[in-house]
Amino acid sequence: MENINEIDFSSGFLKEYKKVQERRLSDLREYFYDKKAVENILVNQNPIIYRVYDVIYDYPGGLSYSVTELMPGKVGNEYYFTKGHFHSKSAAEIYIVFKGNGILLTENRSGDTKTYNMYRGSTINVEPEYAHRSVNTGTTPLIFLAIYPTDAGHDYESIKERGFSYLIVDKNGPTLIKNDRKNLEK
Amino acid sequence: MENINEIDFSSGFLKEYKKVQERRLSDLREYFYDKKAVENILVNQNPIIYRVYDVIYDYPGGLSYSVTELMPGKVGNEYYFTKGHFHSKSAAEIYIVFKGNGILLTENRSGDTKTYNMYRGSTINVEPEYAHRSVNTGTTPLIFLAIYPTDAGHDYESIKERGFSYLIVDKNGPTLIKNDRKNLEK
Repeated sequence: MENINEIDFSSGFLKEYKKVQERRLSDLREYFYDKKAVENILVNQNPIIYRVYDVIYDYPGGLSYSVTELMPGKVGNEYYFTKGHFHSKSAAEIYIVFKGNGILLTENRSGDTKTYNMYRGSTINVEPEYAHRSVNTGTTPLIFLAIYPTDAGHDYESIKERGFSYLIVDKNGPTLIKNDRKNLEK
Repeated sequence: MENINEIDFSSGFLKEYKKVQERRLSDLREYFYDKKAVENILVNQNPIIYRVYDVIYDYPGGLSYSVTELMPGKVGNEYYFTKGHFHSKSAAEIYIVFKGNGILLTENRSGDTKTYNMYRGSTINVEPEYAHRSVNTGTTPLIFLAIYPTDAGHDYESIKERGFSYLIVDKNGPTLIKNDRKNLEK
């Protein structure tokens, strides 16, 4: 990857990227609360939930960045979100939002939850020990840049197993509700 | 410092910052090549060369960021620049340019030089071992965001003592010329 790139301040899209990851509903079936709603949708379609455009500089001391395009939509009454992850090592991440509206849901391993509004221009510091999930509560794609140390590492398993402590659902608008984790009972 | 902030995509300015550093010509008198030109200007005035607006998250694994406002102007035929520094530890830095035009001059300790054009939207990866100096070759302020690991550390001394291997001067427009370092002879 070359050292110079361009970002379009109107759209948030990068001119170049190393790879794009596409996540469809079937990739997130274990993450949404309402499993019946997931399966009902999957009968007829498998919508794209988000795409991540990665620029990776993979050497000691390197920083990397990505642009995420998170679609608008809901599964049951839960808004589309990114899987969310902890970093494997202590490492912060800086977000800059270019388009759309959402909520950045963050939580540490003790369950302490902090949320931040995402809107054009918002610049958010995700603290090192906090898992982070972006939630699109708007009606248009939510597009944001994230910058992080290349060696931060991604731990998705903890979230897959436990979920976040809160869900963000549509109850006459975006509402934070406690995750009772009933969907995780075997 | 709160975790949420805002950046104005038109101007590049931050809504909040922890501190602002102002650098005037007198602070950079040892950095410009043409010492006589420096002293001639300082007889009558001490212009602001740049301001840095810092947002610092000072804990292990933290990232920090700053917006720099580098004024247009010249000392002799050398364009205004930031002092430039190496990081004390191996740590990259990501630049995003919001306004103006310039050149990002980078150089490692072996003298390998890489330059990048700075213009609205340009997104530049400064490799970990490269000193970096921004040079305003335009006629308006050059405004850019830089994101870096908080513990990167700043080594200004090497640059103060040796300068960069190249100067960026106005010779019918911005031109890179070898620094003969005659100004550094005692």
